[in-house]
Amino acid sequence: MSSPDPANLTNPFKGFHIRTEERSPTDEIRLKIAEELRVVFDELLATSAPVEELEQTRAIVNQAVSLLKLRPHSHDYEGPAEGSLAPMNSFLDRSPIIGAINPLSVPMRMDIEGDGGIESTVVGYALFPAAYEGPPGCVHGGFIAAYFDEVLGMAQSLSGNPGMTVNLTVDYRAPTPLKQPVIFRGRVVSIDGRKISVAGTLHHGETLCAEAKGLFVSMRPEVFSRLVEIRQAHQAK
Amino acid sequence: MSSPDPANLTNPFKGFHIRTEERSPTDEIRLKIAEELRVVFDELLATSAPVEELEQTRAIVNQAVSLLKLRPHSHDYEGPAEGSLAPMNSFLDRSPIIGAINPLSVPMRMDIEGDGGIESTVVGYALFPAAYEGPPGCVHGGFIAAYFDEVLGMAQSLSGNPGMTVNLTVDYRAPTPLKQPVIFRGRVVSIDGRKISVAGTLHHGETLCAEAKGLFVSMRPEVFSRLVEIRQAHQAK
Repeated sequence: MSSPDPANLTNPFKGFHIRTEERSPTDEIRLKIAEELRVVFDELLATSAPVEELEQTRAIVNQAVSLLKLRPHSHDYEGPAEGSLAPMNSFLDRSPIIGAINPLSVPMRMDIEGDGGIESTVVGYALFPAAYEGPPGCVHGGFIAAYFDEVLGMAQSLSGNPGMTVNLTVDYRAPTPLKQPVIFRGRVVSIDGRKISVAGTLHHGETLCAEAKGLFVSMRPEVFSRLVEIRQAHQAK
Repeated sequence: MSSPDPANLTNPFKGFHIRTEERSPTDEIRLKIAEELRVVFDELLATSAPVEELEQTRAIVNQAVSLLKLRPHSHDYEGPAEGSLAPMNSFLDRSPIIGAINPLSVPMRMDIEGDGGIESTVVGYALFPAAYEGPPGCVHGGFIAAYFDEVLGMAQSLSGNPGMTVNLTVDYRAPTPLKQPVIFRGRVVSIDGRKISVAGTLHHGETLCAEAKGLFVSMRPEVFSRLVEIRQAHQAK
């Protein structure tokens, strides 16, 4: 897939799954910090470290907090009015589900099987560590729904005129194991005006763990612009 | 509500929303570390710190990783065969949604309006920081689904014979703002044998942001025991 010319984008979500810019040097380091933080979660929840060592850990993490708090937050998030795909590239890296620099994400790795058109399948590869536990040894069902939302959201973007989730329905078929590679798949089922119906599956090996359906409605550019305006007004406070 | 006698529990999920033991001293510190880590996320995604300071931050976080990695993981997670509610108390603190010691959680604070019986309403109070962003300035729809799963899961536990999610359906009505207090509510709608139907809402002030329905099926004790066995077998590897 070639990068789209931002000037041709009328729907600001269009092409949001396509990386058009390299990561900045600061984002490259943020990514590495996020990786370290994910190890901290895993250790934190399971370690047999005694109280004194945990106190030491806390003091160390607090140093990181103090250092980061020295600097103000940047306001480098710009709306599509800037004629840039920055917010969408930002989403790719900052999403709490696929964003490698967001410590909340696994992150899930996304791929497209097919030519990137409406008939293609979006595939999400994930491995959920211990922190995502719901039932014993299993992935929390809520996070399965969350990850489906991202996969189906990516699938509906293949329509060329994507939007926001209006409905998400998940049917849980079998427990989804923690610490095992699992695969999400999503594809467009039908398009009716601004309504895009999508469907997806979650497998562990041959086992179907869950199925999902989603309904998305294409977002009018003015709605997106309005959200960005509100966001910037809050940020300026 | 008084604490149930674990010996009376046939369904291992029964009473999982009720804290029966004080937090251990190590869990108290884990909780504080989780709080610090949430500040790190917020700073990490938004800071204007230059590359050198981020490198310094990374070195600091790596110290925490190294310290935690010195100790093996504890195997203190015991199944209900131990005649203890430990896994359920563990869930209260370790859940990726309500668990105060899990850095992935907001955490959502849960409360029960009513006498704790089937007519009661489960209320979840949350405020999603920047790391949970989906559309500009709004909470990622996937996380709204995830948090509903927890609220509805808690609501179905009021039936006295709770189980696992079989279906979760979320209808999104209006964008849910980041960094604003929002309120989830959930309650039991009907019970048909082992099937428990629940419904919920998400509000920001007077605005209905989303609605959800859930279907849960009571878990047979032997299924829960089997999951715990599998989990322990994996842990012993």
